[in-house]
Amino acid sequence: MADLKSIVQFLDESLNTCGIPDYPGAMNGLQLQNNGEVTKVASAVDASLPVIRKAVEAGADMLIVHHGLFWQGAQRFVDAQYSKIKEAMDANLAIYSSHIPLDVHPEWGNNALLAKSIGLENAESYHDWKGILLGVKGIVSASLDELVAKVTDAVESPVHVCKGKSDGGVGVVGVITGGAGSEVAAMANQGIQTFITGEGPHWSFSLAEELGINVIYAGHYASETFGVRELSRVLEKKYELNTQFIHHPTGL
Amino acid sequence: MADLKSIVQFLDESLNTCGIPDYPGAMNGLQLQNNGEVTKVASAVDASLPVIRKAVEAGADMLIVHHGLFWQGAQRFVDAQYSKIKEAMDANLAIYSSHIPLDVHPEWGNNALLAKSIGLENAESYHDWKGILLGVKGIVSASLDELVAKVTDAVESPVHVCKGKSDGGVGVVGVITGGAGSEVAAMANQGIQTFITGEGPHWSFSLAEELGINVIYAGHYASETFGVRELSRVLEKKYELNTQFIHHPTGL
Amino acid sequence: MADLKSIVQFLDESLNTCGIPDYPGAMNGLQLQNNGEVTKVASAVDASLPVIRKAVEAGADMLIVHHGLFWQGAQRFVDAQYSKIKEAMDANLAIYSSHIPLDVHPEWGNNALLAKSIGLENAESYHDWKGILLGVKGIVSASLDELVAKVTDAVESPVHVCKGKSDGGVGVVGVITGGAGSEVAAMANQGIQTFITGEGPHWSFSLAEELGINVIYAGHYASETFGVRELSRVLEKKYELNTQFIHHPTGL
Amino acid sequence: MADLKSIVQFLDESLNTCGIPDYPGAMNGLQLQNNGEVTKVASAVDASLPVIRKAVEAGADMLIVHHGLFWQGAQRFVDAQYSKIKEAMDANLAIYSSHIPLDVHPEWGNNALLAKSIGLENAESYHDWKGILLGVKGIVSASLDELVAKVTDAVESPVHVCKGKSDGGVGVVGVITGGAGSEVAAMANQGIQTFITGEGPHWSFSLAEELGINVIYAGHYASETFGVRELSRVLEKKYELNTQFIHHPTGL
Amino acid sequence: MADLKSIVQFLDESLNTCGIPDYPGAMNGLQLQNNGEVTKVASAVDASLPVIRKAVEAGADMLIVHHGLFWQGAQRFVDAQYSKIKEAMDANLAIYSSHIPLDVHPEWGNNALLAKSIGLENAESYHDWKGILLGVKGIVSASLDELVAKVTDAVESPVHVCKGKSDGGVGVVGVITGGAGSEVAAMANQGIQTFITGEGPHWSFSLAEELGINVIYAGHYASETFGVRELSRVLEKKYELNTQFIHHPTGL
Amino acid sequence: MADLKSIVQFLDESLNTCGIPDYPGAMNGLQLQNNGEVTKVASAVDASLPVIRKAVEAGADMLIVHHGLFWQGAQRFVDAQYSKIKEAMDANLAIYSSHIPLDVHPEWGNNALLAKSIGLENAESYHDWKGILLGVKGIVSASLDELVAKVTDAVESPVHVCKGKSDGGVGVVGVITGGAGSEVAAMANQGIQTFITGEGPHWSFSLAEELGINVIYAGHYASETFGVRELSRVLEKKYELNTQFIHHPTGL
Repeated sequence: MADLKSIVQFLDESLNTCGIPDYPGAMNGLQLQNNGEVTKVASAVDASLPVIRKAVEAGADMLIVHHGLFWQGAQRFVDAQYSKIKEAMDANLAIYSSHIPLDVHPEWGNNALLAKSIGLENAESYHDWKGILLGVKGIVSASLDELVAKVTDAVESPVHVCKGKSDGGVGVVGVITGGAGSEVAAMANQGIQTFITGEGPHWSFSLAEELGINVIYAGHYASETFGVRELSRVLEKKYELNTQFIHHPTGL
Repeated sequence: MADLKSIVQFLDESLNTCGIPDYPGAMNGLQLQNNGEVTKVASAVDASLPVIRKAVEAGADMLIVHHGLFWQGAQRFVDAQYSKIKEAMDANLAIYSSHIPLDVHPEWGNNALLAKSIGLENAESYHDWKGILLGVKGIVSASLDELVAKVTDAVESPVHVCKGKSDGGVGVVGVITGGAGSEVAAMANQGIQTFITGEGPHWSFSLAEELGINVIYAGHYASETFGVRELSRVLEKKYELNTQFIHHPTGL
Repeated sequence: MADLKSIVQFLDESLNTCGIPDYPGAMNGLQLQNNGEVTKVASAVDASLPVIRKAVEAGADMLIVHHGLFWQGAQRFVDAQYSKIKEAMDANLAIYSSHIPLDVHPEWGNNALLAKSIGLENAESYHDWKGILLGVKGIVSASLDELVAKVTDAVESPVHVCKGKSDGGVGVVGVITGGAGSEVAAMANQGIQTFITGEGPHWSFSLAEELGINVIYAGHYASETFGVRELSRVLEKKYELNTQFIHHPTGL
Repeated sequence: MADLKSIVQFLDESLNTCGIPDYPGAMNGLQLQNNGEVTKVASAVDASLPVIRKAVEAGADMLIVHHGLFWQGAQRFVDAQYSKIKEAMDANLAIYSSHIPLDVHPEWGNNALLAKSIGLENAESYHDWKGILLGVKGIVSASLDELVAKVTDAVESPVHVCKGKSDGGVGVVGVITGGAGSEVAAMANQGIQTFITGEGPHWSFSLAEELGINVIYAGHYASETFGVRELSRVLEKKYELNTQFIHHPTGL
Repeated sequence: MADLKSIVQFLDESLNTCGIPDYPGAMNGLQLQNNGEVTKVASAVDASLPVIRKAVEAGADMLIVHHGLFWQGAQRFVDAQYSKIKEAMDANLAIYSSHIPLDVHPEWGNNALLAKSIGLENAESYHDWKGILLGVKGIVSASLDELVAKVTDAVESPVHVCKGKSDGGVGVVGVITGGAGSEVAAMANQGIQTFITGEGPHWSFSLAEELGINVIYAGHYASETFGVRELSRVLEKKYELNTQFIHHPTGL
Repeated sequence: MADLKSIVQFLDESLNTCGIPDYPGAMNGLQLQNNGEVTKVASAVDASLPVIRKAVEAGADMLIVHHGLFWQGAQRFVDAQYSKIKEAMDANLAIYSSHIPLDVHPEWGNNALLAKSIGLENAESYHDWKGILLGVKGIVSASLDELVAKVTDAVESPVHVCKGKSDGGVGVVGVITGGAGSEVAAMANQGIQTFITGEGPHWSFSLAEELGINVIYAGHYASETFGVRELSRVLEKKYELNTQFIHHPTGL
């Protein structure tokens, strides 16, 4: 059994929750407290009602997510929102969320772990956003087809490819997990030749073609399971807790 | 015993919850549901933690307030916010909030009831705000001193007077309960000679003096107990429910 | 051979180009003139460089698109943008774009034609946006599985389903082609039980689950070929011109 | 007799009028010139018409205020505004205003002097606002009741207490004179346990209760007489001028 | 001798001061009151210090202007601003300003009178701005050279011509006095072929050439003496007052 | 013959195109490419249709301008805009634009060259704008009349003078070419006593009078031919290219 306060403090410090900028809806850190004790940690990408129910069924009293409870702003406690908060409170389930801090963490972050899993070398951070570097770029020794296969393996689901580079190669590869497809032009400006992210809008396809940059859409969900799974492992080791990953894919 | 859905529908229709504009934080209507049944209705000005506790102690399963749960926007469920939601949920306490709809209701509204209690005659609505008329104005046959005494009696607490009119009279009297003190210049422009509201900033005193308009600050809290108390009475009658007013003054 | 001016006037009037609101980047109507004569009309979803090249190869001197040249704002005439404009001008290719006017046209519009192709009955417009109604809603006599099959047939490519309704039915079906996935909550508020659109963000999946609404993502590209293809047919008939649809799918 | 230019230069430099940020309406520094000569300096909190008349009656040719002439923006020269400017000009009365520079001055400032008068020890600046520290915090050896008595003595008028701390103590005490009551949550976040300011809105009471922080509302006017009175003394000494404090309380 | 209040009321009603929109800095109506009596009315384009001095020298106690005192927003009463207000107050000079209400008045307005002086026929209002029509358009039977001569005569000073129309004619003529040169494209869109206004930016020349529209810059000052001179005449007649136009050209 | 890429790179580096801030519409640098080869360079102030035609007639394959193609934002390729781009592309004419980078260049800039041509001594940069210094100030040994004559000679066209200084002298002289007349108050605040710029609004005349600052309006066009003419000379020398200045004055 571990102390919620201690885990929260450890995560806040390790992830630099206070120092990393984010969108207002992220509200990183502890989002829902419990009675103070933690015996089992569940982790998941999204704090949705089905996920919370699975975490409760699994006997967890702490849930770690990448997308927390507050992206829709203040919400009346009725219907699904009522059920979410009531069921979590009744089951003494604390919820901790870490969005961009978990994307960019050099060891546990979604970017770093996806980059590692595809064999990206000479990795360095890039793409300034509010004063931090949001992505990881480097070299992968592979053709585009080979890289697509590596990414497919890593995220364990099909990917969508916008082929923009005409020579079949990949050049400099950039990785920003999640929904960064609107940044295709910014990627090309920064010298990225193949860009891996989760999802992007229809118009990014044409832009990729015209700019001559490959874009691989690996799925927003699929590209962001790495970080929360790693946090589970870290807590399991440090606090000797049972942990469980709650898989609830959106296919998007 | 009454049905929560039925009460909510009755209040929403009677108060025109959907049609009356308000500030984003008001989120008028049902803010927290319960198991669907209502046996006792508490009413109060503010949905604060001490108020919720008093309502729970009183055995209420519905709380009607003027200032609801969402003025601070989305809030983490920790500390007081955790206790508020958890204790209300555990006690099966639904919370319904009505802000401007309850200020301006012609029969049950804070303005109408305060105006009535001070003997305001020839009452008519005035002061356009987002397409509705926010206040009530009319004539009171009294000197300023007499009017101050009437207001003090009505709100059952001391008031603060900014004397701006030099002749000791009151002229046309305007009433907007709550925190409308920043509207002093707008009041003078609309012909109000004595303005009764709840609270206002320091600089409104000088403005009142220079514009020659009396301002009576009756207290934000004190000027807004009328509406929620009246709603209790209405529900008591219509649904044969026990009701109770939770008095928790702020002195502001 | 037809007169460009005459075609443009006909389209502007039929589509109500001046009266229908749109995003600033849409710049509906004639976007690139030519020498004034039209012999062959190509149509396509996007005015991208590969599409323009295919239109030129096909011998067209007019290209009708849904997404025109100006979504990125003012752009330097270098690289792909230089090639696009130069190759179109050299080939005397006029470009006409119609975005929302073509989505909402009652006969030729993307919404109406997709709705028709899936057998939607009692169709009526809904979803106010800047004073117009952006979508079409109605009844489809089908289970969710059957509706998914119908949509797949209609758009001739795979679709993605977020199953939110628990009974396997579809209820009231709403159709807004393109990228309206962020409107899931607004759909539920308007009584839509199954929403068909082109694309949407990851978080819309969880929202659909929690709101109990089915969402079918039919592809932004795939859901918007109907209108431009229909415009071709209309011009072919009215002006006795050759026409050709340029298929250049993005898969998004 | 002293030279207006010299006094203005001395005050601007001592108070760092150009370097300290403020609200646009503050327009710190000389707001109304006179014929260039100063024989008697009046000081007051607000540059209102009654105050200007009292200053003229007192024979002053310079008035130093905390709240100057421009908070309402540009104003027609009619009615009270006409009288204000005309009577001041006719009486050769210069007006100098200093708002936040006078709140935060380490020796002459409202915060420093109020803090000193209640025996606050280990005083240090806190609460960042546009790059400066707006308040003073420290330790007072007293119970809440004792501190309330000290503040009442210091401001020479009654105060309003929101008791949030349950143990009757005061802990770390923060002082920001004027109207900072909306900053209650920010105070709690910075470790303040008892917050002294001038005025605040109704909702700050509930927030104080829920956050467990004491708030003492000492009056906006009453908490801000310290600085202008001190400036009088400073000028009296340096320029051998007669000075007079014009007391015109608002009770707010 | 006339009553200031009466004149102000007459002007406000005749010019529809409250109903006509304007820029915030215009602050149309009485800007500076006097002791209430008017014996002589001066009129001028700008309420600048030299103009005020000339009005005072001329013995006026009311000054009517097109550009009033508040275009720069709130201003400290020092240097020229001090002199302006002090000298006007000392001389008992009231100032009344009317900007757009005086541009668009159908009889006394700058547009109507300039249009009349160049023989514009079939005059009608055009160019929507915040719900009113800002200009006057019609037909002038003249070549461009002849029209330029007419305008030069009317404004009694040289004009600057941007020749955009290739045939030497003038077509439909639009008149908006003052600084409307940035509206050249809007004029062309509304079918104006020759546009007469006061001043415009450098880039409007190239735009006029490219759009094929003539632009005649008659001078901001020179095009706006008509209205204030007419108001003098109107008041002279109605109130039997002496009046005088203060000519103080800027050459711009 | 020279390489377009090489010239663009040389200009971008020499003018610091990437480092100097500008208005969004400036889009400094290469705005329209050609086939890559340059044999003759034309230069002009504005990239208008008549200028482009003159450049094409002169046989240029590169045009250097101060005001480029994008000040109006994205524009449909119809009418003049169609002709502009088509005629330039057909004639293989590249267009390079440099706005503020060319105003402020210490050797080739409009400010520096105008300042030099009027004999301004002890020149130093001044007037912060987005982190750069936009103007040049210094001393000219001359009366106002003499300075006006010097400026008239330098810009080879008449100038307009707002005489604000009463002693006939010029004091500290500031130079900001183009349309900086709205900065008159900022100039006075920075100690400029005579300000030379291209154009300014009507109200700047009154302001200059009241602030006691001379303003010389030398013409927006006329004050900005220096830089582009100098760039021609620089490229002529460095690349042994023919060059030609296209004179197309606006008179504004």
